[in-house]
This record gives sequence, C-alpha cells and structure tokens, in this order.
Amino acid sequence: MSEAFDAVDVIRTKRDGGRFTPEQIDWVIDAYTREVVAEEQMSALAMAIFLNGMDRAEVARWTDAMIRSGERMDFSRLSRPTADKHSTGGVGDKITLPLAPLVAVFDVAVPQLSGRGLGHTGGTLDKLESIPGWRASLSNAEMLAQLEDVGAVICAAGSGLAPADKKLYALRDTTATVEAIPLIASSIMSKKIAEGTDSLVLDVKVGSGAFMKDLEQAGELARTMVELGTDAGVRTVALLTDMSTPLGLTAGNALEVRESVEVLAGGGPEDVVELTVALAREMLDAAGRTDADPAEALKDGRAMDVWRRMIAAQGGDPDADLPVAEHTEDVVAESDGVLTTLDAYDVGVAAWRLGAGRGRKEDPVQAVAGVEIHAKPGERVTAGQKLLTLHTATPERFDRARDALSGGIVIEADGAVEKTGIVLDRVAG
Amino acid sequence: MSEAFDAVDVIRTKRDGGRFTPEQIDWVIDAYTREVVAEEQMSALAMAIFLNGMDRAEVARWTDAMIRSGERMDFSRLSRPTADKHSTGGVGDKITLPLAPLVAVFDVAVPQLSGRGLGHTGGTLDKLESIPGWRASLSNAEMLAQLEDVGAVICAAGSGLAPADKKLYALRDTTATVEAIPLIASSIMSKKIAEGTDSLVLDVKVGSGAFMKDLEQAGELARTMVELGTDAGVRTVALLTDMSTPLGLTAGNALEVRESVEVLAGGGPEDVVELTVALAREMLDAAGRTDADPAEALKDGRAMDVWRRMIAAQGGDPDADLPVAEHTEDVVAESDGVLTTLDAYDVGVAAWRLGAGRGRKEDPVQAVAGVEIHAKPGERVTAGQKLLTLHTATPERFDRARDALSGGIVIEADGAVEKTGIVLDRVAG
Repeated sequence: MSEAFDAVDVIRTKRDGGRFTPEQIDWVIDAYTREVVAEEQMSALAMAIFLNGMDRAEVARWTDAMIRSGERMDFSRLSRPTADKHSTGGVGDKITLPLAPLVAVFDVAVPQLSGRGLGHTGGTLDKLESIPGWRASLSNAEMLAQLEDVGAVICAAGSGLAPADKKLYALRDTTATVEAIPLIASSIMSKKIAEGTDSLVLDVKVGSGAFMKDLEQAGELARTMVELGTDAGVRTVALLTDMSTPLGLTAGNALEVRESVEVLAGGGPEDVVELTVALAREMLDAAGRTDADPAEALKDGRAMDVWRRMIAAQGGDPDADLPVAEHTEDVVAESDGVLTTLDAYDVGVAAWRLGAGRGRKEDPVQAVAGVEIHAKPGERVTAGQKLLTLHTATPERFDRARDALSGGIVIEADGAVEKTGIVLDRVAG
Repeated sequence: MSEAFDAVDVIRTKRDGGRFTPEQIDWVIDAYTREVVAEEQMSALAMAIFLNGMDRAEVARWTDAMIRSGERMDFSRLSRPTADKHSTGGVGDKITLPLAPLVAVFDVAVPQLSGRGLGHTGGTLDKLESIPGWRASLSNAEMLAQLEDVGAVICAAGSGLAPADKKLYALRDTTATVEAIPLIASSIMSKKIAEGTDSLVLDVKVGSGAFMKDLEQAGELARTMVELGTDAGVRTVALLTDMSTPLGLTAGNALEVRESVEVLAGGGPEDVVELTVALAREMLDAAGRTDADPAEALKDGRAMDVWRRMIAAQGGDPDADLPVAEHTEDVVAESDGVLTTLDAYDVGVAAWRLGAGRGRKEDPVQAVAGVEIHAKPGERVTAGQKLLTLHTATPERFDRARDALSGGIVIEADGAVEKTGIVLDRVAG
C-alpha cells in the first residue's frame, strides 16, 4: 500500500519549527497505529514536539486522531447525565473513591475509567483491590448496567480506547518525552473524550508530588485540556490543586481505602473533604444539579449507601476487614518546632519503596504497605513525637523508605506555614 | 548486569539544554552498541542533540566513544606516510579516482576506504565497479600489501570500524536527524580517525548538490571536523568547494570513470583538474612532500601508471571497454542566452532516477546510467543546442529524469555568471 506521507518529512516539519497540516497528523497517528511509522520515528517526532511545541489547532487534531485510532463509548442511552473526573496524579490522592458515589447520589452517572499506579503516585484500581473480592475488569455491558443501577462505577479502562495513545504513552516513558504539555494534554483528553462523557472536571495537581511543579506550567496544561474538551463538545472545567504535601493522612492502598470510608462516614481529614466537595460541586454544576448539596450527602450517609452498592456490584464486600501490615515503624520529630515541610514526592517515594507502588508495569503491589501521617505542615511538634508510621509486609524495605524521607521533613524552631486552601485556581472553558 | 546510567536521564540532560558528562557519553555509545539503549531512545537523543547541540568537548568525546566501539587500523608498519581524503558528497564528484593514484606517485600511501551512493550523490565504489573485474572488498592484509606495493587503494570500509556509527547512521536516516553538524562531524571523523591515517584532507561541499547549502554552515562543519582531527593527532585540513553545479561533465558510474581516465591522461574538464590538483597539494604538503608537483604528474603519465596498477591489483582490467548505455536522449536549450544555472541537486536526482543511484541500500545500480553535460554555467547557448545527454539501460526512466530537471536549467537572455574558482575557502587546524 502506498502511503500518503513519508515519516521523515513529517518529523522534519516539526524539527524545523513548522506547523503540521491536519493531514500529516491524521496520517502519522494512523500509520503509527498500523506500525508503518516505527517506534524510533515516533520518538524522534515526540522529542521534536517536546522542544518545538504544537499550537492549539495542532493539539486538537492530534487528540482527535488518537480518539479515531480506537473505539468510542456511548452513554447516551443512560437515563441521566454523565460526569467524569480526572486527576493528573499525586500522593495520597484517593479522591475518586468518595467522589464517585457522592456525585451519583444526585442522579448523575459517574463512569470512572481508572488506571494503576506507576512510580511514586498510587493507582485507584490498586487501592480498591485491597477490598476483598472487588474486581476492576468489567465488560462494557456490565459497566452500563451498573451505571444505570448504582450510578457510579470505577473500573479498568478497556484497551479499545485510543490505542495510539496507549502505544505512545509507553514509548514516551522510555524516551524522556513525558513532560510535554501538548503530549500530556492530548493523552489525557483523547481517552476522556473517547469515553463519551457529557462533562469533565480536571484536577490538575501542582507541587513536588505532581508532574507540574509550578502553578504557571500547571495553568498552561489546564488551559490546554479545557480547550480540547470544550472544542470536542464536553463541558470541561479544571481546578488547580495543591500537591506540595500528601493529600489527607495516608498514602498506600488499604490505608487510603480506610480513610475514604471515614470521609464517606462524614469524618476524615479536612483537606480530603474540602477537595472532594469542591470537585463534586463542579461535577454537579456541569450536570445541571446546581441545587445539590454534596457536603450534606457526606454527612447524612447517602454517599456511603452508594459506595456500599458500588463496591458490592463489583464483587467486593464493603463490610470486610481491610488487610493490615504485620510490620510498622514510626518516624519521630528530631526537634521541637513547627513542621514546615512534609514533602509530597518524598512521602510518595517512601510509600512506593514500602511496597505500595510498582517500578514496572508487571510488578505486584502490597495492599498493606504505605505511610500513615500524624502531623501536617503548620502543626507544632515536639522532639520524639510520632510524625509518620511506615507500614509494610516486608520489613527489609524500611531502610530505603527512611532514606527517601531524609530532607523531606523540615522542622523549624520559629517556623510558620501560610495557610491556603487546597484549590489554588480554576480554569473554565 | 547493572548499568552505570539510565538512558532516560541521559536523554533528559540534552533535552533540557545541558552538557553531557564524558561518562554519560561513553556509557550511551557503549550501551547503544550492546543494544541496552534501544533504537527509539537513541533517536530521541539524536533529535535532542539536533535541536540543542553539543559543544566542542562533547563532540570530541562522542567521536572518541564511537571509535572505541570498534577496531582501529594501523598503518605504522608502512614504509611511507599515509594521507587520506574525504568528501562530504556531491554530484559528479569523481575526484577520489584520479586523486588517489596521483598522490601515491610521490611515495605517499593513500588508503581510501569508501562507500556506496545513497540518494542523489554517487558512491566511489559504485563507480569503480563499472570496470570489468574490479572488486571493492579487500582483507586488511590485502589492503596493506597493496598500499606497500602500489601506494594507493580504494576499497570498501570493513564493518569493524566504528560499529556504533554504522548503527547510528542508519537510524538517523529514518528519523530526520541527519543534518546536524555535531552528528555529521562525529560520524565522518570517527571512521577517518579509526582508519589510522597520519593526515586527512576534507573536501566540504557547499551548494544545492551538497548537504550544506550555504558557506556559513559548511564552514562550521569544516571547523568542527578539523578540530576533531587535530585533537586526535591527525593533521587535518578542509577545503570548502563549490557544489552549486555538477563537478566536471558527467554524473553517473561508468561516465565518471571515463572522465577520470581523461584527467589521468592529462586532459579532462578544467574544474575536475583544478580540484584534483588542489586536494593533492594539501595531501602532499601534509605528508611532507612540499616539493612535489601534482599537475606535472597528471601530464607526464605517472599518475596514470599508478591508476593502472591500482585497478589491476584489485582484479580490474584498465584496458577493458567500459559499458555504454543502449538508450540516450538529449536535453536541449529552450532559448538563446547565457546558461546561468545548471543545478547540481537536480542533475543528481536525474542521474539517480536514470538508474545511477539507489533508493534503498539493497538496490542495485546501473553502470551505464547518468547524465552527460555539454554546457556549463556561464556559457552562451542557442535555442535547440544540446545541453545534456541522458543515459540509461531502462528508457521508461527518461520521463521522471526530465521532471527532475525542470527548474534546474535556467537560460537568461542577458545573463552573466560570476566566475569563481572551485575552492571557496580553506580551514586548517
């Protein structure tokens, strides 16, 4: 078969600072999916895009071409509107767990197609798999039935959505081309648009535990994604939220499920509740439920009811005891003063090394491993006071976890921490 | 085996505009040769180098690492000094053929390890293979014996020299990372330094038929290569020479051999003689033969004597008739005036399409195909006058060859061409 373009010409276009034509983009994504464009050609192209950028029209076409590389889901037969949330990933970010049932309380369908953790950030499916019996894989028919019946589903994304993105994502990971805004934005949005949701709320994390370390970069990523969603007909809003310190008081799989259940029971850490309610507010507004009161639905047990039905529908036992680590060790304060830093990235790496995360896609994770947090930045502590408890099934991991934390905990005798809300900014279409 | 570096970190260094450490360079070239660094990682790295550059120390280390990826030749047992020439490639560039025997006349050993043509530029080995019986492949022992006995050898480079470069060159060709000066310079110089010559003269082509389209870029490439050679202990000089129009009056394999024999017989086109003598002068000076008179050795038959022995030593019959094309067609002037442009690139593409060159490495070439030139820029022509004769064994190729020439031939009623010498500049260490 004769090809419409030559890969070398397409790479050269971006290498030399030019703009792709729509036809070049359509061809290169399609030809990459067909393996006519080789991996080494796509990685050279990704590096050229990394260094020379893509403009709004190019990113939109790139995203659309990735969507067209696979199937699209269709929720239009559901009797209620759909709302979806995506987080760019952080440490202790268990928000999907209370959020999905909370929004479903108000007759909005919440289809959360989620992933597994890689590196220092945890994965939603890994967390839920610490619940005995729960299974992540559902057929499309099972998913639709659960959305109609329960209103909320959290399950694994099928391989049919944006297969070009799946290939490109794995390639970017090994070729130092992950952190480019056009490539991050198109990767996230191609999957989310292919999922066919009516509205989407993006939680763009900012800080040491996130991809985006500063507010300016995170803002650019948020704007790019909101534009892509809006242009594709999805009502899209982004919140920029703080990821300089872990979210809540736990990082790890079973530990985070336990904390999520506390939130669903009307308690839980203040920052987790604040962010869950803020994201629920955005999703409910986008779905036309402007009168709904999500804070109330956490307090009165309605969100917990949906949670229990959602877990049970996927084979999980909501009353089962969660697994607990056999081995724990405490990390204590070395001096008196104010805890000014508890670094999100360092805590994430410590949880990962304790066994909560994986180094390679095929590695298993420990349900019990992770970090429990007893003091948050801004709190006054005294020497010898317990700051963290490390949990693991494999105590030989404690040393490397402690190494990860050196430098990540700062106590200053007369320190102070400026109190800000968890939501730093909002970007709407 | 545990690796000293991670490929992603090395790529990130250059992506973010940093300098490689010597250890990073040594590792990445070695690991690429061992296939620990994958093709798609090296292509991302090549694109980052293309866009963010390498400084003098980085290019030197990169070149050295590529040399160390393979074997080095050793000519130190020869009774005479060695001198080598390398051309960056052009259209009608048959200079190696008369030059090697000419320099050998003066008791200098000339080991010309050459390549085959790819794209619009011809290959020295392809040209010589139009001589009945001549063979390109020699063992190292045969090569040394011929250098001692005849003084000149033109043969295929063994695969043991700079294997990392061989791999990288093939990769760059498919990933639009060919035209980067640090990568071109290190590719050429790694092979030339590994060949172990005492001195090296570089013929850096400038103009439409060359990699480097302008004098500034070509000068930067020349300076980079002269620095690399000098730093490695090889006396290195570069001439920047004109490649806006083909060299001599022929482009094609047997056609160029015939023209080279005319030069060795004391005749031939003025520009070919001028460049042959200029390059011979540089090689002889570098070898300490400052009294030698190369122009004289072309006229008095001494260069021809060495040529005949050189061809015969590799199985060729210097008296055999060269093959002639069965099919020819003329290209004539469309108007009266001065021929102001005969574009080197367009003539090169025409010769290639007639069958003189190959599109892929494994394609065969025609000995007989090519373009014969009857008028050069600056000459006055009249409408209907023969400008070119196209030669091929496969007449269905004439149309596409003519297409290549449209726009490449310009005749202006009151045009003029500024007469310059073939040598535009000289760069010494």
